[in-house]
Amino acid sequence: MPYFDAASAAPLHPVARQALLASLDEGWADPARLYREGRRARLLLDAAREAAAEAVGCRPDELVFTPSGTRAVHAGISGALAGRRRVGSGLVVSAVEHSSVLHAAERHAAAGGSVTEVPVGRSGAVDAAVFAAALGSGDSGTALACLQSANHEVGTEQPVAEVAEACRAAGVPLLVDAAQSLGWGPVEGGWSLLAASAHKWGGPAGVGLLAVRKGVRFAPQGPTDERESGRAPGFENLPAIVAAAASLRAVRAEAAAEAARLRDLVDRIRARVPELVPDVEVVGDPVARLPHLVTFSCLYVDGETLLHELDREGFSVSSGSSCTSSTLTPSHVLRAMGVLSEGNVRVSLPAGTTAEDVDRFLDVLPGVVAGVRERLGAPAAAAAVPAAGAGSLVVDALGRRCPIPVIELAKVIGDVPVGGTVTVLADDAAARLDIPAWCEMRGQEYVGEEPSERGGVAYVVRRVA
Amino acid sequence: MPYFDAASAAPLHPVARQALLASLDEGWADPARLYREGRRARLLLDAAREAAAEAVGCRPDELVFTPSGTRAVHAGISGALAGRRRVGSGLVVSAVEHSSVLHAAERHAAAGGSVTEVPVGRSGAVDAAVFAAALGSGDSGTALACLQSANHEVGTEQPVAEVAEACRAAGVPLLVDAAQSLGWGPVEGGWSLLAASAHKWGGPAGVGLLAVRKGVRFAPQGPTDERESGRAPGFENLPAIVAAAASLRAVRAEAAAEAARLRDLVDRIRARVPELVPDVEVVGDPVARLPHLVTFSCLYVDGETLLHELDREGFSVSSGSSCTSSTLTPSHVLRAMGVLSEGNVRVSLPAGTTAEDVDRFLDVLPGVVAGVRERLGAPAAAAAVPAAGAGSLVVDALGRRCPIPVIELAKVIGDVPVGGTVTVLADDAAARLDIPAWCEMRGQEYVGEEPSERGGVAYVVRRVA
Repeated sequence: MPYFDAASAAPLHPVARQALLASLDEGWADPARLYREGRRARLLLDAAREAAAEAVGCRPDELVFTPSGTRAVHAGISGALAGRRRVGSGLVVSAVEHSSVLHAAERHAAAGGSVTEVPVGRSGAVDAAVFAAALGSGDSGTALACLQSANHEVGTEQPVAEVAEACRAAGVPLLVDAAQSLGWGPVEGGWSLLAASAHKWGGPAGVGLLAVRKGVRFAPQGPTDERESGRAPGFENLPAIVAAAASLRAVRAEAAAEAARLRDLVDRIRARVPELVPDVEVVGDPVARLPHLVTFSCLYVDGETLLHELDREGFSVSSGSSCTSSTLTPSHVLRAMGVLSEGNVRVSLPAGTTAEDVDRFLDVLPGVVAGVRERLGAPAAAAAVPAAGAGSLVVDALGRRCPIPVIELAKVIGDVPVGGTVTVLADDAAARLDIPAWCEMRGQEYVGEEPSERGGVAYVVRRVA
Repeated sequence: MPYFDAASAAPLHPVARQALLASLDEGWADPARLYREGRRARLLLDAAREAAAEAVGCRPDELVFTPSGTRAVHAGISGALAGRRRVGSGLVVSAVEHSSVLHAAERHAAAGGSVTEVPVGRSGAVDAAVFAAALGSGDSGTALACLQSANHEVGTEQPVAEVAEACRAAGVPLLVDAAQSLGWGPVEGGWSLLAASAHKWGGPAGVGLLAVRKGVRFAPQGPTDERESGRAPGFENLPAIVAAAASLRAVRAEAAAEAARLRDLVDRIRARVPELVPDVEVVGDPVARLPHLVTFSCLYVDGETLLHELDREGFSVSSGSSCTSSTLTPSHVLRAMGVLSEGNVRVSLPAGTTAEDVDRFLDVLPGVVAGVRERLGAPAAAAAVPAAGAGSLVVDALGRRCPIPVIELAKVIGDVPVGGTVTVLADDAAARLDIPAWCEMRGQEYVGEEPSERGGVAYVVRRVA
């Protein structure tokens, strides 16, 4: 049963399992104690720190273990902002950071700090020059910048080395969220802080890591605690820390070969999906990307049903569609990229995924998508037959959820003459993203949005094809 | 090789180990996902929450899992204080809480809140009436009170049910730190919040729990996160959570029998140590106490050397002596109780400790203590022979660490006549506690302390015996 959601959590690597078992017996005592069980635990902790630091590319005394990647990000951002409070309160982040970064930024803003979001292009990458310009913007000094090494939803790599250089020139520390990439290799460039999460590389849950380079001003927030250099309160989760470090070393040893193999499999998906499934947009950078991750969106498809049907066929994937999130808004990453969000599927292959698994996915996908579309009454790919009719039409999709507003638009576009408009009234948040994306894909003109007297928003589309 | 420091960390319970192993395979996926691996993880998480809630005595939706007991305490205190910000900023804590509580209180004070510390008697317990009176004190309304269920250093149980009743009457929520006692049984009384730590009851590291009763105003602090009801950010450490819940249920099933057995062993230590070792003070309540924990202090003994020698004999214990802490101050618990801190030993027996282990400890201890005393040149128990000499003496122990100032005092007390005084100049923090404690133990009169022109403090003792 192929599991294709390694970007959420990778299954435990065999080395992690072995190390965890061994250290359940050797590493349960308090490493701060001086008796033999404590000394043994301390040795294990020190060795794990050294191994992790080597993989990260920092000194052991620059690295602490946290209870999760999210906690590493939270501690890193709050500590760096507090350490540079005198410089100013400016925080610069990309628009496509992980929610842990964006939620920390929201909290900073709520406490009176200023936050600048750097936009991304359609591939999901920031422009290093735009990021550099943002370092100097804002009405207060910039205390910290954050940029992920690669995006967790679409796999696009960010220009971290260039941005780090710009940060260095501006005298601003850069925190890199390396959660998605650290298993594949160290983050190049002169970063100042780095956060990561063990269960993303096949380590156990319960372990994140935070590196803070010597010389970076850092003031841990929250109550004082003597553990982990005062940067991660609470008793160390030692067996899991040992397993995390051992598995990081193990996946790195396999990384080059496995990356090449998975890169080919992902290229196969990127190439075949648009051939096999009509009206699909594959998103993210096709080259500068994580080896194991690909995301595409299917017009006229309800993401939740699609995930459910794929699960029935034995494929576990995730989605950034609004109907699969608790907030009923599409993924902030897809929004920032300005790409289609409906029928969105993220495939992230764990190490060891076979070509047969991928081929079976490609066999199954077209029928699943077609089935969902049929049930929703989606128009066939070439539905828009030229017709003489009214010069304009209004489609009321108020109260209807994604992908219905787009389906309704597609159904009637052929009923207006070329040059005529269709106005879609919708109150579903995904429509703002998906109606322009549909126009782009189908060669129609997106005119813009207007307030609607009947509630929601009126999206105006001109038929040009 | 007997390990006698269960109060720091208990060895992993066999049930915890089994549950951890089983859930490494079943519980690694993201419980927020809808595919089968995620659903399986969610089922495990829900079952663990139900089991833990039953053991705590709360509803499952009142309980969240945190990465440690420390994090549970930090989150509980900050959330409860923020939830009742409109009522006031008063925080009431006992003077002998765990450092995680006291550090959270320090942070609250640093942010402008007010903190009231309720003193304890010589047994280490608060007086419920004194605690109740503190709820109404201070110049701002009391937002929260914190009281441990039992003390982690001396084992004394606190009058939680009475204090909870007083809190209820005052309309103040009570947070109970149940880290040391939850494995032995639920906390009785009408508490509002409860924190605990799995590795204290034989569960794995990496799991704490925080219960917040319905109706308690609570506003989680820090960046937003959707996991664990927004009260514990970051990916759930699911295998460890499952193991924590399973082992809590298992230790509870054995608790009554094991508590009775360990209580007898501790009674044996409490009775025999003062018979076997001269100049010892056994501290903590002899009856209202944890079943497995006993603490005593040995005059004229250096705690660090004592721990080292006991370790060489195969016994792992901890100590609240100043020389065993990184701060060079004695344990805040011993200070608050006003008891001797030098040569302090805490014995906390893990489940399964045998009578033979305890007997061997009692065999070994007298020789170890005598050896340390001999090396330090400590006076024999009956050293103070009446002598005619100067009416007063000054002993310069500046720059000398515990237990030297007390040893120097004991050496010369016989050199002054009854009615004469010995003034000890000392700059070691332990002297403030240990010189009065010595006077109490040896029937001498502690006159008080004076500023010293030569640095440190002058402690004045009058010979009466």
